[in-house]
Amino acid sequence: MKRRTFRVVFQPSGRRGEIEGEKTLLDASRELGADIESLCGGKQLCGKCRVRIEEGRFDELHIRSRMSHVSEWHSSEQKFINTSEKAEGFRLACAARLRGDILAFVPEESRAARQVVRKAAREIEIKQNPVVRLYYVELSRPSLDDPLGDFERLAQKLDETYGLKSLGVDYLVLPKLPDILRKADWKVTVAVWNDQEIIWIHPGPVEEYWGLAVDIGTTTLAAYLCSLKNGKVHATESMMNPQVTYGEDVMSRITYSSTRSGEGLREMNTLIISALNDMIARAADTTGIGTRDILDMTLVGNTAMHHLLLRINPQHVGLSPFAPAIHRSMDIKARDLGIDINKSAYVHILPIEAGFVGADNVGVLICEEPYRRDEVHLVIDIGTNGELVLGNRERMIVSSCATGPALEGAQITSGMRAAPGAIERIKIDPESFELNYKVIGKNEWSQHSGPGRMGTKGICGSGIIDLLGELYRTGIVQKSGAFNRNLKTRRLRDSNDGEVEFVVAWKEETSIGKDIVVTQGDIRQIQLAKAALYAGAKLMMRRRGIKQIDRVVIAGAFGSYVDREEALIIGMIPDVAPEKIISVGNAAGDGARIALLNKEKRDEANRIARQVEYMELTIEEGFQDEFIAALQIPHALDSFHHLKGVVPDQILNQ
Amino acid sequence: MKRRTFRVVFQPSGRRGEIEGEKTLLDASRELGADIESLCGGKQLCGKCRVRIEEGRFDELHIRSRMSHVSEWHSSEQKFINTSEKAEGFRLACAARLRGDILAFVPEESRAARQVVRKAAREIEIKQNPVVRLYYVELSRPSLDDPLGDFERLAQKLDETYGLKSLGVDYLVLPKLPDILRKADWKVTVAVWNDQEIIWIHPGPVEEYWGLAVDIGTTTLAAYLCSLKNGKVHATESMMNPQVTYGEDVMSRITYSSTRSGEGLREMNTLIISALNDMIARAADTTGIGTRDILDMTLVGNTAMHHLLLRINPQHVGLSPFAPAIHRSMDIKARDLGIDINKSAYVHILPIEAGFVGADNVGVLICEEPYRRDEVHLVIDIGTNGELVLGNRERMIVSSCATGPALEGAQITSGMRAAPGAIERIKIDPESFELNYKVIGKNEWSQHSGPGRMGTKGICGSGIIDLLGELYRTGIVQKSGAFNRNLKTRRLRDSNDGEVEFVVAWKEETSIGKDIVVTQGDIRQIQLAKAALYAGAKLMMRRRGIKQIDRVVIAGAFGSYVDREEALIIGMIPDVAPEKIISVGNAAGDGARIALLNKEKRDEANRIARQVEYMELTIEEGFQDEFIAALQIPHALDSFHHLKGVVPDQILNQ
Repeated sequence: MKRRTFRVVFQPSGRRGEIEGEKTLLDASRELGADIESLCGGKQLCGKCRVRIEEGRFDELHIRSRMSHVSEWHSSEQKFINTSEKAEGFRLACAARLRGDILAFVPEESRAARQVVRKAAREIEIKQNPVVRLYYVELSRPSLDDPLGDFERLAQKLDETYGLKSLGVDYLVLPKLPDILRKADWKVTVAVWNDQEIIWIHPGPVEEYWGLAVDIGTTTLAAYLCSLKNGKVHATESMMNPQVTYGEDVMSRITYSSTRSGEGLREMNTLIISALNDMIARAADTTGIGTRDILDMTLVGNTAMHHLLLRINPQHVGLSPFAPAIHRSMDIKARDLGIDINKSAYVHILPIEAGFVGADNVGVLICEEPYRRDEVHLVIDIGTNGELVLGNRERMIVSSCATGPALEGAQITSGMRAAPGAIERIKIDPESFELNYKVIGKNEWSQHSGPGRMGTKGICGSGIIDLLGELYRTGIVQKSGAFNRNLKTRRLRDSNDGEVEFVVAWKEETSIGKDIVVTQGDIRQIQLAKAALYAGAKLMMRRRGIKQIDRVVIAGAFGSYVDREEALIIGMIPDVAPEKIISVGNAAGDGARIALLNKEKRDEANRIARQVEYMELTIEEGFQDEFIAALQIPHALDSFHHLKGVVPDQILNQ
Repeated sequence: MKRRTFRVVFQPSGRRGEIEGEKTLLDASRELGADIESLCGGKQLCGKCRVRIEEGRFDELHIRSRMSHVSEWHSSEQKFINTSEKAEGFRLACAARLRGDILAFVPEESRAARQVVRKAAREIEIKQNPVVRLYYVELSRPSLDDPLGDFERLAQKLDETYGLKSLGVDYLVLPKLPDILRKADWKVTVAVWNDQEIIWIHPGPVEEYWGLAVDIGTTTLAAYLCSLKNGKVHATESMMNPQVTYGEDVMSRITYSSTRSGEGLREMNTLIISALNDMIARAADTTGIGTRDILDMTLVGNTAMHHLLLRINPQHVGLSPFAPAIHRSMDIKARDLGIDINKSAYVHILPIEAGFVGADNVGVLICEEPYRRDEVHLVIDIGTNGELVLGNRERMIVSSCATGPALEGAQITSGMRAAPGAIERIKIDPESFELNYKVIGKNEWSQHSGPGRMGTKGICGSGIIDLLGELYRTGIVQKSGAFNRNLKTRRLRDSNDGEVEFVVAWKEETSIGKDIVVTQGDIRQIQLAKAALYAGAKLMMRRRGIKQIDRVVIAGAFGSYVDREEALIIGMIPDVAPEKIISVGNAAGDGARIALLNKEKRDEANRIARQVEYMELTIEEGFQDEFIAALQIPHALDSFHHLKGVVPDQILNQ
């Protein structure tokens, strides 16, 4: 029996349509393309998907029969919607099920941000040695004395001229050979993949050709369209990973993938492929070429993204012992993956290191090359998961730590992604405890701007680190993480639930119509996250027998904006001179670009992925002790050497 | 503007449907699946597609307006339809265009025969060494101490146990790995292609697995489903090549492929692929397996069939200097070709030698292996084209000769394919000039059967050779090929067009309601065909400096039924002892089977295809003289040594 359908309208987007009864409003929003935030994947845990039912809540008949156009209030909603909000019609979109026609308003803070921070390509030196190369040849015509077949004629000439032995040809190129050779008067350019296979043929001489490097982040997708002739980036495209609507974090996606006997996996796979194709079309358009002109592609992503892309069940990656389906790199025909570049081109998927350390980390490594250096490096890749690599040319170890999403702005009362409206920098005056902050998308700091002009929406990762650092430096938060209630500032107050909270921005400075705050609970989340990173680094140093790190590399789009001193203050990273901390931005994407442009780096990536030793932190002796100690701000066991002068002595010596 | 459509019914098949106006009835028959013969490909040259318009020919209105439901009589039809037939409503289906509703009757002789002679698999000794092999392994489970990925775990074990190094995996197998390994408690069987790539995984131990060898003939498709464990043939399927409706011979298909800017090519490609898939489904069904259980496949076919299969424009193969798109063998994923065996399996397409000497000939060679022997072999593959290979271990030359389709029963007044109802054997009494013949599908010879029980429809290739041999041996036809009109037999008579003709079977012995005859013109066609073969062989012998052939191998389904002595009598092959002539049946298909079961033979095929020297007969000095001399019956320059006692002296010494 087919279920009844109801009319659903989402505002302000205006998305509307008929939706089957008993579906949640979150599902309805996905079907209709109205993007509602869901960090927990619809499990009523994050409270980010609050919507206001505007119409259809109660009609006369329903009031009489005590029924509503949506399902009954659920106890799990209590935590996120107070009584007056409930009276206004607020519901969690993941809890309310459709039972009649409705119009729902999606408040700004519940909207999945459409604009995302661009992952711009860094200027990096890349040795130009692409896997796909162009070769121009002029052939002799066949005759009755020399009736050699077209392919063999071409291969023979490529061998004579360029020393290319035992060439193959993609079966889709073959049908083009006879006509192109004759129309081009036997003068053609071919593209050869890895000195092995002809994947493209074109009449006459050709100089410019194209490749695409892609970083599939859990949150953001980035694509760089490069000239394979000189490596220049011609277009950078980025967009939100559309799988975000199935949950912000990797674990939510893994859970979703196994729903409906694997249909969830197919659904997410289709989503990511079509998102990639959108980016490819845009990048080609920007560059003024056709998507079929793209002759090579590289891909990095964490293990879960890697598996979802290949339609591999990622479930086992999420369960101890976290074994992935495959480590090594793969070369798969674009057509097999459904990726709209040239059908004969290969997509090179970089290797992964371990269950939780993916090809994105490999990308960072081949970009930063700690394995070539004497200095001991600590590479921190803070994405939705934290990945740590420690070592130098002698030995490299890698681990993954469950930072949780706090450092990315999730599971924090006013947390949000690094998107326009997010506070990314904070300074607190130690006398007045007044704030000065900067939001993404505005050039002026808040103190130089009218409150109404900030349009603040929340706090993103770098803002959160600044905030904790400043709260500690100014004594508002103590070493233990507890607020100092003795301080006289109107910003420190009791919340509705009886918790202590600190007001970061007043209602009138925001575009969401309420104060932006950080609660005692939020501080605890941030402490857990930073402690996980710190304890991980410390245990790795112990394993390697290292007392001092020479260099800290922070990767991830998030990392680009982290204030080095604040990161030291909160004890997120072991003590090191601030100038030895460098941010490398989207190094995973840079790694993809490097692998696109230099084939030796692909071999290097496979070698490194195999050599790096994986260390499972949770089973390491002393993990618990290190972790608990690391909860303090700054780390209780550290020397604070580099914080002298940055944090007042009386605070450090509390 | 969309054309009007009309209702068309074909009888006796009863196929019916709406067809766009102005299409020919031949096109309509193709659309509706009513199989009408067309040897010339709809060019009004062969006259095989005669149909009788039963209804809708003239209705009252149309009589008044002098219009018909089909287009006007075309002058080209005159040649094939006499005045009384015209009055009955006979038309050429390729000439008459649809202009109203019609019912058309397709007479038996115009129906494309559905039943074809099975190309049964010969008993041949094949060394079992398949490219795809099964390996069983038991793996250790992953743990936190050993969290190696599934593929690497598997590959490591396969290396340890079987020495398989640097294994790859098809990207479609990868998604199955994690679940199958865990469900099978880490005990699995994998199929590995060419010691390189895992293409299949199955829980637990597996012994039996499957492969398919296919021969794509111009006329007939044959498929052999074999156990890859022991080589046994479990199912043999054959069917008519559905491209036959676009013309019997290779040149008609090449011409058709270029119609409608390549749409003709796509159409024929789709036809052949779907025919292969039908055969695969039937073979799998017969064997009681799924099509996905077929893990390897080999394919042979002439160059045009090869190109059509790969969707390569075959036009240049049909034009001097006849260069094919590629010579060497190819391994293409079944999924890429749209062939419904296991999606991860490869299809191995055997190499081709030259423009007119295809993979089918290579199949014959690796089956017969003349290149391993001291005896000089002449291998004759008479399909729709004649291919000749001459040589031994020292040197091999190959040529193609334009025999025309006469030896296959086409372009002969009463010629037909080797299908039920075809005369395949003929003996003529030298005194009475009465015939005794045998038709395919009946066990009794005509003299032991009532005339009404023969159901004769025409004469196929082997019957044609017998006929000419017997006509010559009994003096009815002279050395020159001319009928001896002085003989007293009612079978020799003037035809309607004033030509002399010989009655092979009287109307009452046939199922087509008319006498089966051979005309002076037909004799001339047969002479041209046999002369082409003979002259070719002679020129090749001259090139190799050989006076005597040691062994003649006749390949092709046609060849299985050729009477060796009759072939010598008509001078189709150079003089050799009859016992040195052997028929090897569908050796091309056997070659495909050999390549399926033994990978060394694939390498051998590539080596041989490259080594065999192609000789273009038409530009060879003296070709014309040899050809003209060879028109005589038997060959005028030959010794007739082996015909003594077989042909009366007075005839030989005419």
